[in-house]
Amino acid sequence: MIETHYSCPCMEQCPLNRAMQLIGGKWKMQIICSLNNGGSIRYNHLKQRLDGISNTVLAKALKELEECGLVTRHEFMEVPARVEYRTTKACDDLIPILDSLSDWCEKYEMKE
Amino acid sequence: MIETHYSCPCMEQCPLNRAMQLIGGKWKMQIICSLNNGGSIRYNHLKQRLDGISNTVLAKALKELEECGLVTRHEFMEVPARVEYRTTKACDDLIPILDSLSDWCEKYEMKE
Repeated sequence: MIETHYSCPCMEQCPLNRAMQLIGGKWKMQIICSLNNGGSIRYNHLKQRLDGISNTVLAKALKELEECGLVTRHEFMEVPARVEYRTTKACDDLIPILDSLSDWCEKYEMKE
Repeated sequence: MIETHYSCPCMEQCPLNRAMQLIGGKWKMQIICSLNNGGSIRYNHLKQRLDGISNTVLAKALKELEECGLVTRHEFMEVPARVEYRTTKACDDLIPILDSLSDWCEKYEMKE
């Protein structure tokens, strides 16, 4: 176990805080779940799975997830253009941790 | 493993989303870390450990953490008044998951 975050308050360097920044916000967790459940997914298909998200918000979130190495974007040279997204190894390794977090929340019947 | 969140998009019911709501935000993770590292902590001591937090924000965050069962508040009948906070069993069980999240972030050198 890397105990860096035990030196809190250390917000700038805290890996836990970084992780929360990466996957926090209204949509990123849902995007990761949808990609994880769906393998390689076309942009429009992904958008359909995320009820209510706008193109601007989805495109921005995907770009951020791509930049931080959680998602890859594949553009196929076809007409019409086909763009697919999928999770990276880093993201796949994150999933069991998110599972634990989900289980924890269910176990203690946590409410917001 | 409880696979409820695999039925995403399910934002209202998603335990993962609930968990993120509970521990997300600017300060809650830092408060949990500080309490976890310090055992039972007096309010003023906790505030000192969280550089830059206002009384309003800290009091609100502690109240929310108390309401959702992550933190308990003990008021001692002393003069001057002494109030201490500590983590609950639910919160203690959350710590190893946060450790994993932290380790994951370090392993992949995740940047925001």
